[in-house]
Amino acid sequence: MVVRIEATPINPSDLGLLLSAADLSVAKTSGKGVETVVTAPIGPAAMRVLAGRVGKSMSVGLEGAGVVISAGASPDAQALLGKTVSIFGGGMYGQFRTSKAADCLVLPAGIKPEEAGSAFVNPLTALGMLETARREGHKGLVHTAAASSLGQMLNRLCRADGFPLVNIVRSTQQVQILKDLGAEHIVNSAEPSFRDDLLAALKATGATLAFDAIGGGKLAGQILNAMEAVAAGASAETYNMYGSSIHKQVYIYGTLDLGPVELARGSGMMWGVGGWLLFHFLAKVGPEVEARLKARVANEIKTTFASYYTRTISLVEALDPDVIAAYSRRATGEKFLINPSVAVD
Amino acid sequence: MVVRIEATPINPSDLGLLLSAADLSVAKTSGKGVETVVTAPIGPAAMRVLAGRVGKSMSVGLEGAGVVISAGASPDAQALLGKTVSIFGGGMYGQFRTSKAADCLVLPAGIKPEEAGSAFVNPLTALGMLETARREGHKGLVHTAAASSLGQMLNRLCRADGFPLVNIVRSTQQVQILKDLGAEHIVNSAEPSFRDDLLAALKATGATLAFDAIGGGKLAGQILNAMEAVAAGASAETYNMYGSSIHKQVYIYGTLDLGPVELARGSGMMWGVGGWLLFHFLAKVGPEVEARLKARVANEIKTTFASYYTRTISLVEALDPDVIAAYSRRATGEKFLINPSVAVD
Repeated sequence: MVVRIEATPINPSDLGLLLSAADLSVAKTSGKGVETVVTAPIGPAAMRVLAGRVGKSMSVGLEGAGVVISAGASPDAQALLGKTVSIFGGGMYGQFRTSKAADCLVLPAGIKPEEAGSAFVNPLTALGMLETARREGHKGLVHTAAASSLGQMLNRLCRADGFPLVNIVRSTQQVQILKDLGAEHIVNSAEPSFRDDLLAALKATGATLAFDAIGGGKLAGQILNAMEAVAAGASAETYNMYGSSIHKQVYIYGTLDLGPVELARGSGMMWGVGGWLLFHFLAKVGPEVEARLKARVANEIKTTFASYYTRTISLVEALDPDVIAAYSRRATGEKFLINPSVAVD
Repeated sequence: MVVRIEATPINPSDLGLLLSAADLSVAKTSGKGVETVVTAPIGPAAMRVLAGRVGKSMSVGLEGAGVVISAGASPDAQALLGKTVSIFGGGMYGQFRTSKAADCLVLPAGIKPEEAGSAFVNPLTALGMLETARREGHKGLVHTAAASSLGQMLNRLCRADGFPLVNIVRSTQQVQILKDLGAEHIVNSAEPSFRDDLLAALKATGATLAFDAIGGGKLAGQILNAMEAVAAGASAETYNMYGSSIHKQVYIYGTLDLGPVELARGSGMMWGVGGWLLFHFLAKVGPEVEARLKARVANEIKTTFASYYTRTISLVEALDPDVIAAYSRRATGEKFLINPSVAVD
C-alpha cells in the first residue's frame, strides 16, 4: 500500500543519520527549492568511522504518519484506504512511502497524521524502558536528560502505571518543566547537592536501573555508585569488600556527549553498563509483546503518548541554513515536525 | 569437622582484604614471632569507602587445603578422617579451620595439601569464565593480564576443551610465558601494532566476550571497539549507524588498575560491560553446575588446575616487611603459599 506522509518528526536518531558528524558552521548551500543541496565537511577521525556509508544513499526519516491512498486488492488492505496510519523504518522524509499493511499502526478514527507522526520511536522507547525494568526485576527507574520529549512521555507513562521514576536533569529550567508535569523525583546534576539529592531519590524509589541518553562523561558511573551506596547501606551489618549483591544497571541509549563513558570504580561487583536500542529490544521480546505495546500506543496516542512540536516545516525548509541551525541544536523540549506533503515551489 | 590447614595461597582477593588500600611504604612493625603486629596508614578517600570495616575483625584466607583431623560421628564424616580436603570461604590463614563435610572438596588419594591449596578460586574462576562464554553464546574468549596464574590455567583449560582464547598481556616477558605454554593467540598491548594484532586475533577466533582483570583505563573499551570493528566488517554491505547487531561483552573481574574504566564510544549499541564475581556466578548457575565444576577440579588438580608457587611461607613470615613487600607486588607469575602448620617460634 502507499501512504501520503503528512507528519514525520526530526528525532535525535534522524539527526545522527542526516547530519552525522558534519561541521555545520561551515556548511554551504547551493541550488533552490527542491534542487537545494547542502554540503558540509566531516573531520578525518569521524570519516574513519563513517567509511561504510560513503557513496551510499541513506533513507532518512525513521517514522511518520499519513493517509493510505492506495492499497492492495484484499478486503483487509482495502479497508485501510483513507485511514490515518503510522509507519516506521526509514525513508519517511518524502511525500509517499510504501508499506506492508501488517507493518503499520492503524490509528483510531478521528486521529490526524500530525497527532500520530511520532507514534513509534518515543512511545515504544518509553514503553520499552518500563518493560525492561519489569522483566529485569527492578523496582524503580532513573532517567537522564529527563526533560526531553521522551522524558516527559516517560513521566506520564510511569505515573499512569504507578512505577517510581527518578528524573535527572541539568538545569533549573528543566527542573521546572518536570515540576509542571507533576514529577515527584527530580534531581539537578548542576547543583552542588547532586550526590545527596540522588541518594535520597534512589533510597525513596529503590531504583536500580537507569536509562542514560548522555553516554559520555561521568554520570553513568555516578548513578551506579550512588545505587551501590544505597544497596550497601541497606545491608551494612557486615563489611563485604565485593560490595552488595544487588545488581545495578545503566543502559546507554543516546549520545548527547560523544566523549568516553567514564566509570569511577565504587559500585562493587554486581553492576552492568550497556547499549540499549529499541530495535534490539523489540527483536528480543518478540512480536507478541511488540503488538501489545503498539496497541497501547494507538489507544493512548492523544494522552500518554502525545507529542508536541516547536515548529512544522516543509522538506525544502528542512534544508534552510537557519532552520538546520535551529533543529540541530537538540535543545530540550524543542522538536521539529516535517510535513512533506505541503506545497513547495 | 576440623581441618589442619597446611596450604593456603595469597590470592589477589586476599591481598584486597589483608592490605586493602594501606600505604605499605610507611608500614611499622611491632612485637615478635606470633605477637607481630604490622600497622600502616590508609588515606582519607579510601577510608570513606572502608568505613564499614573499621573495628571489625576480618577473617583472611579465601581458600586452603589440609588434612581432616576430627570429624562427626556419622560414617560419612568418619570416612574423611586423614583425607586431604580443600575448603573455601575465608579464615584459612590459621592452623585449624572447621568446615561442614558437605562444603569441602575431597581430593583423590595421594594428593597432598600443597597440591590442593588453590582448588577453588582460580580453577572455578577459569571454569566459570568458560561456562559463562558457553551459556551466553560466545564462540571465543579474550582474557587480559593473561600471563597470571589464572591466565595460564585458563590456557590449559581452553586448550583441553578446544575453546578459542585470545591472551592480552603487557610485556614481552609475558608473551614468552604464554608462548612456552603453547598459547596460540597472544597480543601485547605495549606494542604499537596492538590494535591490528587484536583485530587479527578477534577475527581468527570470533571472540565476542572478554574477561578483564585490569578494570581501570582504556583497555576494556578498546576490546569492545575492536570486537565491533570485526563484527561490523563482517556485514559491511549496508551501513548501519547503530553498528552491528552482534552482542559484545566485557566482564571486569579484577582491579589491577584502580582508576576509572574509560570506554571510548565506537562499539555500536549491542555491548555490555559489567562486574563478574565467582560467588555471584555460582549462585546464578546453582548447585548442580557447581558440583559438576568441582568434580572436574578434583579430577584434574595435578594437570589442568595445578598451581605453582614462588615461595612457601609461615604465618609469621607473612608479617615480615620484606615478605609483605614481595607478595604485595602482585608480580606476574609470582604466587605465595602459606603453610600455617609449620613450626614457628
